[in-house]
Amino acid sequence: MTRYQHLATLLAERIEQGLYRSGERLPSVRSLSSEHGVSISTVQQAYHLLEDRQLISPQPRSGYFVTHRKAQPPVPPLTRPVQRPVEITQWDAVLEQLSAREERQMVPLGSGNPDVSQPTMKPLWRELGRIAQYQNPELLGYDSLYGMRALRQQISRLMLDSGCVVNSDDILITNGCHEALSIAIRAVCEPGDIVAVESPSFHGTMQMLRAYGVKVVEIPTDSVTGISVEALELALEQWPIKAVILVPTCNNPLGFIMPEARKKAVFCLAQRFDIAIIEDDVYGETAYEYPRPMTIKSLDIDGRVLLCSSFSKTLSPGLRVGWIVPGRYLDRALHTKYIGTGSTGTIAQYAVAEFIRNGHYHRHLRRMRQIYHRNLEEFTCRVRQYFPCGICVSRPQGGFIMWVEMPENIDLVPICCALREQGIQMVAGSLLSASGKYRNCLRLNYALPFDAALEAALRTTGEALGHVLENA
Amino acid sequence: MTRYQHLATLLAERIEQGLYRSGERLPSVRSLSSEHGVSISTVQQAYHLLEDRQLISPQPRSGYFVTHRKAQPPVPPLTRPVQRPVEITQWDAVLEQLSAREERQMVPLGSGNPDVSQPTMKPLWRELGRIAQYQNPELLGYDSLYGMRALRQQISRLMLDSGCVVNSDDILITNGCHEALSIAIRAVCEPGDIVAVESPSFHGTMQMLRAYGVKVVEIPTDSVTGISVEALELALEQWPIKAVILVPTCNNPLGFIMPEARKKAVFCLAQRFDIAIIEDDVYGETAYEYPRPMTIKSLDIDGRVLLCSSFSKTLSPGLRVGWIVPGRYLDRALHTKYIGTGSTGTIAQYAVAEFIRNGHYHRHLRRMRQIYHRNLEEFTCRVRQYFPCGICVSRPQGGFIMWVEMPENIDLVPICCALREQGIQMVAGSLLSASGKYRNCLRLNYALPFDAALEAALRTTGEALGHVLENA
Repeated sequence: MTRYQHLATLLAERIEQGLYRSGERLPSVRSLSSEHGVSISTVQQAYHLLEDRQLISPQPRSGYFVTHRKAQPPVPPLTRPVQRPVEITQWDAVLEQLSAREERQMVPLGSGNPDVSQPTMKPLWRELGRIAQYQNPELLGYDSLYGMRALRQQISRLMLDSGCVVNSDDILITNGCHEALSIAIRAVCEPGDIVAVESPSFHGTMQMLRAYGVKVVEIPTDSVTGISVEALELALEQWPIKAVILVPTCNNPLGFIMPEARKKAVFCLAQRFDIAIIEDDVYGETAYEYPRPMTIKSLDIDGRVLLCSSFSKTLSPGLRVGWIVPGRYLDRALHTKYIGTGSTGTIAQYAVAEFIRNGHYHRHLRRMRQIYHRNLEEFTCRVRQYFPCGICVSRPQGGFIMWVEMPENIDLVPICCALREQGIQMVAGSLLSASGKYRNCLRLNYALPFDAALEAALRTTGEALGHVLENA
Repeated sequence: MTRYQHLATLLAERIEQGLYRSGERLPSVRSLSSEHGVSISTVQQAYHLLEDRQLISPQPRSGYFVTHRKAQPPVPPLTRPVQRPVEITQWDAVLEQLSAREERQMVPLGSGNPDVSQPTMKPLWRELGRIAQYQNPELLGYDSLYGMRALRQQISRLMLDSGCVVNSDDILITNGCHEALSIAIRAVCEPGDIVAVESPSFHGTMQMLRAYGVKVVEIPTDSVTGISVEALELALEQWPIKAVILVPTCNNPLGFIMPEARKKAVFCLAQRFDIAIIEDDVYGETAYEYPRPMTIKSLDIDGRVLLCSSFSKTLSPGLRVGWIVPGRYLDRALHTKYIGTGSTGTIAQYAVAEFIRNGHYHRHLRRMRQIYHRNLEEFTCRVRQYFPCGICVSRPQGGFIMWVEMPENIDLVPICCALREQGIQMVAGSLLSASGKYRNCLRLNYALPFDAALEAALRTTGEALGHVLENA
């Protein structure tokens, strides 16, 4: 980020936090320049940027003022799913969403795609070119069932950032976080078991649970602090729950990072009730705070946490390189890996290992964190501008997924269908509930660089939401 | 193959078939030269090659004579597994075999690895280099759940060679044939079901069945004509069998190609008893006959055949590019694919698609067929030379796997362990039986180019077998 962008972000945050109120005059260019030790023109550029974003407006001979705007929409309240084990439905909706992702000309507001267009991705192609050049015949043979050692070593180093000390032999490489989650569930559960999940929660995981004949208890979840530890405890007392599945860091779809104390509380509960924790950390490295938050796995003293992650959200989902650290479930995880896919493709594994080893990964991650954080700011600004009053909007602390909630009597499923016909790929919240709740919610992707098409899509979506709200 | 190699192969076959008997004088160089329309020196080179292989020996001023040799060992008789549903065991043995494949300095006589060292593989690296150069951002995003259309189109064209007319939308790309088989089993079976399998049969498939709580009836199988259709019919009458799993073309481990009439008979049985057929065609394209044999799938008029295959045996297992054509089970297969791994890695898919599109695949296949056929000849020759009398040896019609059977009272499991300690990776036949039968058998890989290490390994193995036979 350049100096003026940095200053603009700082000022935007102050406006967001109410330090500068609506209609208030901002400090003069000269005073800001001396306050921050930057040049006059830097301050002017920052002010121009904020003006472009309609956060401030100039008044002749008086300086800049905070624009009168609609108030920041509130965050969604604690969710209230049914408090008993339910069967999972929604496969048809998931399949429909998957087919929509093939239509390339759509604005993918409902997708889980990261931005893969940044120049810090280039070295990955270079690593691939080097692989093509050196023609190492080992890459053509069957890989170890565990995955390539070179990659596992890099991952064990990366995991230190989240407070985890694991050996490369504790790690199993998988085809994306998807296979990691699939393995974790099968390593822990038997058909007929019950597991606890956040509500809303990732539809992929729930379809896996459905396929293995597992029921879920959806636990109330707060959009700022995560799963309700109290409600989880009540559920554990009431039902023979085998495991809890969480996305505690940069949650999909709510965007929260569970405070450390709550992560600890969940781990203690798991110990008390002797259940496993399946921790989906796939968005963990995209947290806007640095250093990144710790994982629940870092607290794991008795091997009950199965950490699942991948490079799909940080690098590229097309690579299908993920991993699982299955703790005490290693033997079952190995068997499950074997009977699902055997070993994992070598070329993508090796390219990623080299990308990390040569220092490109941390540089890329730093950039993506900043980009997603800035996108969030732009996006929130447009959502406020185009979306009707009376909605709640999440404040993601990482990743690139936003959750929008409308009054409960509103059904957005038909709206999403209508928007798809207008070239906007959109996912209703019901996809993320076992029982099809959250039909009044939307999951929005803000990974993509802001452009005219995205702006138009947001405006169209906002109008559709306004219309449905009026007629409700 | 050069002209003299071709002639040598022809002569070796005649010796093999007994047209030239042991001790008989071979035609003079001059007469062969005029018979085959080749030069004198070509015939001389061919004779030198046969001499190197110890098939013939020169006698001064008399010409070449067929060497006095041990008789060709007989093929293994029809197998006789237990005729009732059994639980699958052997996971520990499978895991042990998998770990052995990580020790690179071992002679991999027990592996399923193809030869990836041939120059016809080079264009694959070039395609990879091109991918690195063009940096198509689409390859970085999530692929379609079905897999890349470009690759599916190429596969649907390839499948014409086996008599199958399928559309690219009937094909699902998978992580190797392994995932294809795993999907097929889950698409067809429920826990508690019974399926029929060849005996012996691929350990990977059996471990999958075990994991899904499926029992197997092992059907007697002939090393020349394949599964006994009569025994299969009896089993279908006796048990509520849901599906039959077959490797009918270039069987693993017996190497047979089921005659077309028998493939038809199995399909008719499947129709009569309304069961599914899971056809593993992973070795199908390595058949030594050309054009390649038809698949059972090519007879499939009602969608009951699930064809599973991959490029693991023809190109490289490290790529993990396979496919399934699930017929009427497409919907279930799609869901199973989704909950297992989501989509498949794009880069290897695209490299293979381009490799085929640019005509490299057929050239490579032609070469590999010849190489494996020639290796088989060398290998059989050494097996006859070094292995003791009283064994049976399969006559593979494709692929690169040989099956050796010793008298039933002999246990080769400890021999395999001992050989592993001498740096020879070896698989006892019990790995390929649900109930651990075939402890008196060995599965040998002859994909690798013949060299001193391989020769020494075969000699050591032969000595160990001779020793155990003497002491039995």
